Amino acid sequence: MTRHSNPEWIAANRVQLDTTRAESPTIDSAHGIAPKEFAGLTAPLMAAHNALADRRKAGELGFYDLPYQDASAIARLGGELADEFDNFLLVGIGGSSLGPKAAHAALREPLYNLLSREERGGPRLFLLENIDPTTVSAVLRHLDPARTCVNVVSKSGGTAETAANYLVARDWLTRSVARPSDHLVATTDPSKGDLRPLAEREGWRTLEIPPNVGGRFSQLTAVGLLPAAVCGIDIVELLAGAADMEERTRSADLDSNPAYRLAALHYLADTRKGKPIAVMMPYADSLKYLADWFVQLWAESLGKAVDLQGNPVHTGQTPLPAVGAIDQHSQVQLFVEGPNDKLVTFMRVERFADPVTIPGAHPEVGAMNYLAGATLARLLNVEQAATEMVLRERNRPSVRITIPELNPFTMGQLFYLFEVMTAIAGGLYGIDPFDQPGVEHGKVLTYGAMGRAGFPNLLGD
Amino acid sequence: MTRHSNPEWIAANRVQLDTTRAESPTIDSAHGIAPKEFAGLTAPLMAAHNALADRRKAGELGFYDLPYQDASAIARLGGELADEFDNFLLVGIGGSSLGPKAAHAALREPLYNLLSREERGGPRLFLLENIDPTTVSAVLRHLDPARTCVNVVSKSGGTAETAANYLVARDWLTRSVARPSDHLVATTDPSKGDLRPLAEREGWRTLEIPPNVGGRFSQLTAVGLLPAAVCGIDIVELLAGAADMEERTRSADLDSNPAYRLAALHYLADTRKGKPIAVMMPYADSLKYLADWFVQLWAESLGKAVDLQGNPVHTGQTPLPAVGAIDQHSQVQLFVEGPNDKLVTFMRVERFADPVTIPGAHPEVGAMNYLAGATLARLLNVEQAATEMVLRERNRPSVRITIPELNPFTMGQLFYLFEVMTAIAGGLYGIDPFDQPGVEHGKVLTYGAMGRAGFPNLLGD
Repeated sequence: MTRHSNPEWIAANRVQLDTTRAESPTIDSAHGIAPKEFAGLTAPLMAAHNALADRRKAGELGFYDLPYQDASAIARLGGELADEFDNFLLVGIGGSSLGPKAAHAALREPLYNLLSREERGGPRLFLLENIDPTTVSAVLRHLDPARTCVNVVSKSGGTAETAANYLVARDWLTRSVARPSDHLVATTDPSKGDLRPLAEREGWRTLEIPPNVGGRFSQLTAVGLLPAAVCGIDIVELLAGAADMEERTRSADLDSNPAYRLAALHYLADTRKGKPIAVMMPYADSLKYLADWFVQLWAESLGKAVDLQGNPVHTGQTPLPAVGAIDQHSQVQLFVEGPNDKLVTFMRVERFADPVTIPGAHPEVGAMNYLAGATLARLLNVEQAATEMVLRERNRPSVRITIPELNPFTMGQLFYLFEVMTAIAGGLYGIDPFDQPGVEHGKVLTYGAMGRAGFPNLLGD
Repeated sequence: MTRHSNPEWIAANRVQLDTTRAESPTIDSAHGIAPKEFAGLTAPLMAAHNALADRRKAGELGFYDLPYQDASAIARLGGELADEFDNFLLVGIGGSSLGPKAAHAALREPLYNLLSREERGGPRLFLLENIDPTTVSAVLRHLDPARTCVNVVSKSGGTAETAANYLVARDWLTRSVARPSDHLVATTDPSKGDLRPLAEREGWRTLEIPPNVGGRFSQLTAVGLLPAAVCGIDIVELLAGAADMEERTRSADLDSNPAYRLAALHYLADTRKGKPIAVMMPYADSLKYLADWFVQLWAESLGKAVDLQGNPVHTGQTPLPAVGAIDQHSQVQLFVEGPNDKLVTFMRVERFADPVTIPGAHPEVGAMNYLAGATLARLLNVEQAATEMVLRERNRPSVRITIPELNPFTMGQLFYLFEVMTAIAGGLYGIDPFDQPGVEHGKVLTYGAMGRAGFPNLLGD
């Protein structure tokens, strides 16, 4: 029996949500959401819920059902690549890189790439996301092409950054290895786009991104699962965590559905309480990239010019990433004393594998002696509670997400939680959370300036 | 002759500022600053300028004069430590870590810690910033204490996170090396606080943080200069860049002083044009941490509850870091279509050491063939221009900072530019940009919960 099929282990590993500090009467009703404000959302929430359920049934929203996929082919390929290679180089940007980074940072060792193969348990992971020439040349200079798998990840196959980095990486492979195709893996649409036919013609190994799953909702497809499996993360447990959250987010009930409560809270805070900024602040270094992943999800899904009827609305709360305790020495001064325009979501981890006891020394030093015998884990979580209390005292709303421990099961829950939260929030705002029309014109301008056939150069740059 | 004393080289390496796209008539006056709005700022700007000049003369604002310090002792110690050690472990948080990370990322190789000593040219750099036990134990497990220098950086010596991590690192040293004091370097106040007497009693090497320089303005003190020197960054050139910017930021003239123009623009955008969010978006991976450093500087300096007369004001624009082109696939949709509530500052680098030519392949693939023969550097900068144009078309203000190339001289200019910009912005807001009273209560709550003598436990956690 796996641990994630043991009901007791599951119960002890569910993430928990506490929204009281974002609500009145815990904080003043000028800034906290009142019970009657939640109640007033019942009808629009139900309408949004039903609209999503219809689209899910119609097969348009594949992300909902990803927890129940058969991932054995991905796991098998992951194991194969881990046996064959020392380095896994992911070429992708946005939804193709943020999720893989988030899972890796949360579930693998902090200094992963510096460790020996034995300590790591899998190939080293590198990314070519940006088209920064300094990064690209440094990564390729460092890696041995003969020992490197290049995973090109693009739903459409047409992303300029990914195309450019692929061409550079392909050339680098070609100059050193006899059969570059054996080193290349494509993760892309099963039929559409330019990458699929290219990969099949050349005999790469390929995986599919389901056509009904958008880039920023694709972490639980092969996009996120392959790099995870290659690096030794238990993707079956990751999906089990997502499935557990799927069950918790089925009903349109704000009391029992944590995704809906979070969405309602953020929506009401933004539209009724003057909170245009949503801070995502985990108290754990390894969740920094989960916050970055959330930033894309929230910003790109909800930042929309028009509603479903085509009326200009310019919606979208601005997500702001932070990391505790580090940002207590950076952004928290602003959160505490600046404009009361933020809803802060704290994430805290209850159990660390090694909490690290602080040794005693210098009993005469008042700024140090009180720490002896405590653990870093306790200090970290005390600081979270202290920051939360300071905000509360100043009537600044915050939410606490408690993560029993960092493991694939809890990470699967978090990915799924935030995806459902974002989908339903789109419904509350009355916009389509699954498109991104605002970035198309920039792409067209880029094509034109770079001389792509059929695109005029309007940039003059 | 050094290159930074050659007038031609200097002229070719000055960062340039273009604010037209944040101003009317380039964009609509509802969102862009009009010439008369700048003109209306003349008197308050002059008052703020004079107030800062008075405090500078009175010796209260040491950061202004740091470019002219004699850094030879720091350079010498840096060389000494580089000879003695393979690893430099910086224990510090906030102002003690953000600047060192920014300089290192911008001026050293992207995969620095993975390279050989020969390729790197200096010891590896590690940080203990956060009290995350997973990070701390992983870093210490990985390093050989016999080959590691531990630099404890704290102005006050009382920062809880730094004290805790120092105690853990000290114990780790003590268990392995005969003379831990030979491995320890303190960077702290010359007389105040608990760290100075401890370090002197135990015979550590020490450097000073001038008493009149606050943490977030300390990058050009030993805080930032020692780690830079250890890792082979030319700190004399860094200071020369800062000195060059010092000359450019002396007058209270909005046309010639780039720091003042940036400050005025941000202040007017925030207070007159509904732009409570300041995006800092370099198009270069290696400037990501400069954006993080700016976030602390801007947030902690300007996020204030009361003005200089004690009236409640709750000032502070929220700084938001982004990286191009990556965030075109994450945040830009929101910037383009969401609320028009942001002023975006782009930074772009004109010359990369290796621009990386994109090789041709797949001439039949329309999504790729147009890239052949171009460089990644050009693609990156075309994308910056495209994003800027899209914002402009939608009347969303942006600023462009052009960096001729990344080197110590340009980085020194940028650090100094943003520090002066922040100081004068504090004057425009009428608040004190050099304190951080809002984080004190959280510290007191933490002390109490952790059992520090004299602090009651009010947290109950």
